[in-house]
Amino acid sequence: MDKTFSPEVHAKIWSLSKTHELLPIHRVLLGHDGSMTNLLELISYCEVALRTIKQSVVPCPREVADLLAVDVEEFVNERDIIIVRSRDGSPLLYARSYIPLSRLKPAFKADLMRADIPIGKILQRYRIEARREIIDVGYLSSDCRLEELLACPGPYLWRTYNIITQGKPLIMVKEYFSASFVS
Amino acid sequence: MDKTFSPEVHAKIWSLSKTHELLPIHRVLLGHDGSMTNLLELISYCEVALRTIKQSVVPCPREVADLLAVDVEEFVNERDIIIVRSRDGSPLLYARSYIPLSRLKPAFKADLMRADIPIGKILQRYRIEARREIIDVGYLSSDCRLEELLACPGPYLWRTYNIITQGKPLIMVKEYFSASFVS
Repeated sequence: MDKTFSPEVHAKIWSLSKTHELLPIHRVLLGHDGSMTNLLELISYCEVALRTIKQSVVPCPREVADLLAVDVEEFVNERDIIIVRSRDGSPLLYARSYIPLSRLKPAFKADLMRADIPIGKILQRYRIEARREIIDVGYLSSDCRLEELLACPGPYLWRTYNIITQGKPLIMVKEYFSASFVS
Repeated sequence: MDKTFSPEVHAKIWSLSKTHELLPIHRVLLGHDGSMTNLLELISYCEVALRTIKQSVVPCPREVADLLAVDVEEFVNERDIIIVRSRDGSPLLYARSYIPLSRLKPAFKADLMRADIPIGKILQRYRIEARREIIDVGYLSSDCRLEELLACPGPYLWRTYNIITQGKPLIMVKEYFSASFVS
């Protein structure tokens, strides 16, 4: 059950890499198990900022409930964000995340609701020990909404992962970025 | 005290990047906060293996004791390893790590002593939640021992970091790799 280096996920990344001639940086973006914000800053050689598109409390969608190990209809915070390069505002990544409200500590919740702080930085601020479990990765040849959000035509790469703390998934994230992402 | 994205560490990476014309992949190798084994597999597009050069229990060296928050002379496991590409045995990275014996759980200890398992995979096997705190990074123009270990002339890049679990540093690692590391 070694999910971070899950043979299935690595095999899928190898397969995508072969079929779509991915660069090493794409495989890293798909399969790394550290903070995405930190990684984007290192690649882009500058700070990045978060723009929240939408944030609301909703009953947990069926396809997310299993992954978060919560009941369907339990309330979750749904957040859509774009990470942009600070120096020119270029979009680098679009993400949607789900957090069960029942697993949020009050201080953490306040920061999360402030909407402008990346999850990786919140975890770090509260020195939260965690592990990231990559669930799936994929390739998407085109998508009108992503073209608008990322200001870039397809293809795109995506990944889904959980951030697990105290034995339970705290957050489920699905992220998309351009397959022509170069550094 | 946001150490993972410590302004000092990022500033040092930016400075090294400017002075030595580092590639994005070098900045990622220096500053990421995920598993190094996983990262090397993603970059190299193949599995990697660990070769232990030396492993022994020693009194904690003075310069390590502060970083691990243990007393000088407390016993630590000192391990020197090389991570190599499985397909051709090429050395990718040399690392020395220190683990206070008092912080090792028995099962974990047995795996560690087996010598052939990377720390990132041990953490994952036991589903250990942790955070990595980058302490320092640097550049080394030449070094005879590294030239032999990495089968590659200088310059080299290095980084030092702690892996923290249950509020205490479990492991201190110093890693070296070639500054001509390309993927």
